[in-house]
Parts: sequence; C-alpha cells; structure tokens
Amino acid sequence: MGESSISRKKYIVVFLGPAGSGKTTLTGFYGNWLREKTGINVGFVNLDPGAETLCYSADFDIRELVTVRDIMVKERLGPNGAFIRCMDLMLQNKEVILNSIRKMEKEYVLIDTPGQMELFVFRKAGPELISTLKELGPVVCVLIFDPIMTDSPSSLVAMMLLSLVVQLRLEVDNVVVLNKVDAIEDKSLLDLVENHENLKSVLASSSEGLVSDMALSLIDIIGEYTAASRLVKISALKKIGFEELYDILHEIFCVCGDLT
Amino acid sequence: MGESSISRKKYIVVFLGPAGSGKTTLTGFYGNWLREKTGINVGFVNLDPGAETLCYSADFDIRELVTVRDIMVKERLGPNGAFIRCMDLMLQNKEVILNSIRKMEKEYVLIDTPGQMELFVFRKAGPELISTLKELGPVVCVLIFDPIMTDSPSSLVAMMLLSLVVQLRLEVDNVVVLNKVDAIEDKSLLDLVENHENLKSVLASSSEGLVSDMALSLIDIIGEYTAASRLVKISALKKIGFEELYDILHEIFCVCGDLT
Repeated sequence: MGESSISRKKYIVVFLGPAGSGKTTLTGFYGNWLREKTGINVGFVNLDPGAETLCYSADFDIRELVTVRDIMVKERLGPNGAFIRCMDLMLQNKEVILNSIRKMEKEYVLIDTPGQMELFVFRKAGPELISTLKELGPVVCVLIFDPIMTDSPSSLVAMMLLSLVVQLRLEVDNVVVLNKVDAIEDKSLLDLVENHENLKSVLASSSEGLVSDMALSLIDIIGEYTAASRLVKISALKKIGFEELYDILHEIFCVCGDLT
Repeated sequence: MGESSISRKKYIVVFLGPAGSGKTTLTGFYGNWLREKTGINVGFVNLDPGAETLCYSADFDIRELVTVRDIMVKERLGPNGAFIRCMDLMLQNKEVILNSIRKMEKEYVLIDTPGQMELFVFRKAGPELISTLKELGPVVCVLIFDPIMTDSPSSLVAMMLLSLVVQLRLEVDNVVVLNKVDAIEDKSLLDLVENHENLKSVLASSSEGLVSDMALSLIDIIGEYTAASRLVKISALKKIGFEELYDILHEIFCVCGDLT
C-alpha cells in the first residue's frame, strides 16, 4: 500500500475561540515557531469560510470550496444566513476535508476554525469534523480568549466554564489560552485564575448575589478538570507563552497519543 | 416632568441564542401573541446589524445606525471583521439605544440580538447594554437553542452549562428554551433534561470517560439553579409552548420586578 507512508498518524491541534480572539494569528505564528523550534513538518488548514487574509500558507483552505462572500451573492443571503449555509456545506464536504488532511505529508496539523466559534461548536459540522479527524490521530483543542473575558470575577468563571462546554460538545481535551496578555493593564483579576482560593474569596465578598454563589459552586468542579484550570497566557503577535503552550500540548499528546 | 409618563418602568426580555436558533422568529411571533393575549403594549427592538428581514415591526432598529453589509463595503472588511466592528459601534451608541427604548410608550420590550450570540455575550457591548437596560426595569434573557444541541447526553449538559456561562457573563436570569421541538423525531434524549436522575444514569453508563464524569459532576450544580434546569419546549413557528414561556417570565418578573 503506497498510501501507508502518507497516511501515518498525525497530531492535530484545533484553534477555537470567540470572534476576535486571534485564532488565525495564533495558528500562523505558533505554527511557524513550532516548525523553527522542532524542525517538525507542520501543516496548516483553514476552515473559516469568512476569512479574508491568512497569516500562514494553507495546505488546505475551505475557501476553495466555499466562501461567505460568494454565498451572500449567489444565494442572496444575509451575513448570518450565509455563515450557517457555509457550515452546512462544510459538513457535506467532510470527506473531502478529511482526505485532504490525510494526504498531507505533515506530522503536525494546525486547524484554524470559523471566526464565530459557535458556528463550529453548536452546529453539526464541528463535532462531526472533530470526530472524523480522530481517525487520523490524537486531536486537542486550543481555546483562545480575548482579555475582554477577564473584566470581572464572574467573567473569569464564565471563561473556564465555556471550556467545559466545548469539551462536552466536541469531546476532546482543551487547552485554554488567554491571548493579547501584553495589552492587559490590570493584571490583578488575571492572577485569580491561577489561584482558585483567592478567586473564591473575591466572589464570596462580592455583591453579585446568586451569580457569585453559582460561580463559587462551579470553581471546584472546574478545578478537577485540570486542563481547563490551567490558563496559558500568550501574545500571538509577540510570541509570548509559546513554550508553555508547546509543553502542555506535548504533555497531552504524550498521554493520549504515545508521543515520545 | 412631562417625561415621567413615558419613562415608567419597563419589563425587558432579551432573546439570545446561537446562530440559527430562531431568535428573530421567536421575538416576532411571541411578541404578537403576547399583545393579543394580554393587550399589553409590546415594543420590539432589533439589535442585529446582520439581519436581512424581520418578522416584526421594530420600534428601534440598530440597522438605522449600522449594518454589517455597509461596514463590509465602507470599511473594506470581511464578514468576521465587519460583525466585530458593528459591535464596537453598537457600544459607542449605547446611550442612543437606551434613550430610544426609554422613550417608547411600551410596558413590555422584546429585544432581538445579533445572529451570532458570542458577539453579544463575549465582547463588551452585550454586558454593558444589559447593565444599562437595568436602569429601565427588570431584565430577563430567553436563551434559545436549536434541537442540534440535543444530539447526545453530554450535549444536553453542554446546553444547560452554556446557560450558566451566559448568566455569569450578563448577570441576569435566564430562561432556557428549546425551539423547533415539532421537528424533533427522537424525543428520548429530550426527556432526560427534565429528569436529571435519568440523565445521570445514561451518562454513568456511557463510554465517554472523562467527558461523562465531568457532565455528572455538573448536573447537580445545574439543578441548583432552577431557571437553567427548566427547559421550555417551544416551536416559534407553530406557537407551541408560548403559554409556558409567558408563565415563567411572569414568575421571574413577579420576583424581581414586583409585577402583579
């Protein structure tokens, strides 16, 4: 079978995050850094049909099959309807996407996802694609947040909780990453994510009532799922935190994929 | 003060949900039903700059200030960038929006939100707008899901958990609604949301490993926050479940807003 050499196991990292969190930048900058650091053959996949420009050279690009702009014109849809239609078309092309990735002579594959995370997580295309990708090797998600989500203690809990939602829906391990850390002025709230006891004290003394109570109950459960409670602080543009992200991904791949 | 009569307390319902869940349809159909049923003066607000057509007559429409299509052309942005830019412009116009709603001679105001829920929940505009709206009266969110989220036991937990994420981030009560129930063929999974003990049994016997364990730990906490554990099954198009939604909203308003 001549295919065996090119269909060998791949390590797959899926970059996910709400609109504006910096998925594309991190995918590109981290991939190039990884290539330089390790000499590994890194493949790039773009699954965002709404992307305008990429900061990496895609080995597979969903826009060859479908783009939001084209769908808006051809099917006379508004931007909301066009995004949903693109997700349905992505699902229909699941095998094409999978085969393209399978054929890549890459050991590591980084996948950039739609600008709006909910299109990937809460519709059918994302979970089905991830499930299919598992045929090629171990899959891990990097869930990226913008510092906007660090603006209150309850937002910090919301951020960690969203990582559990994504794990439940996609059924893969998550690494939670806070991007643009170089732009954060007040780092006091940020430190609370590392120290759950301090976060609990702050919540207990806050005046948010039921919301604080709920957040308090949730912190302990979040703590049990360590991947979600470890927050990797990065700046994709300034390449801050890439070593730590690499170490955590490597650790997860060692456990689930026998990476040595 | 001539303003006193038109700035009296308002009951505000914000319709939120992932792309394609049916926010606009529910806002319109529920609002018209409410008007017919109670004779209450119902106001409609559209905050989706990406909407193409509405099925209600908006008393305030964000598209008078900004639309995704215009921003794509004028600022030469792709659809992702245009949506984010629209949210920033919405935030800048917070006072205009608030004043328009304040001036409405409406007792009940229904607010339709952006097609992509994450734009409203995980950026700044949503939380700040909700916080400002509280000046006008009690605010409740109706969080709408599509049956896609009922495709596995862990997705059901993800759905309920997302309601907690929204509560933590927006700091208002949530009513969780499952739309398009008339289209669900296999209703067995759906019944599990009503019966947490059965849901636990199914998760405990599933083979999803860590994901099931996590879901099990979370169910009890979800159960404590009753609003999130009560799932209202509706069909916006067929007007199924509107009575139940009305009763729950009325109940919440009675507690938080002295509605009698």
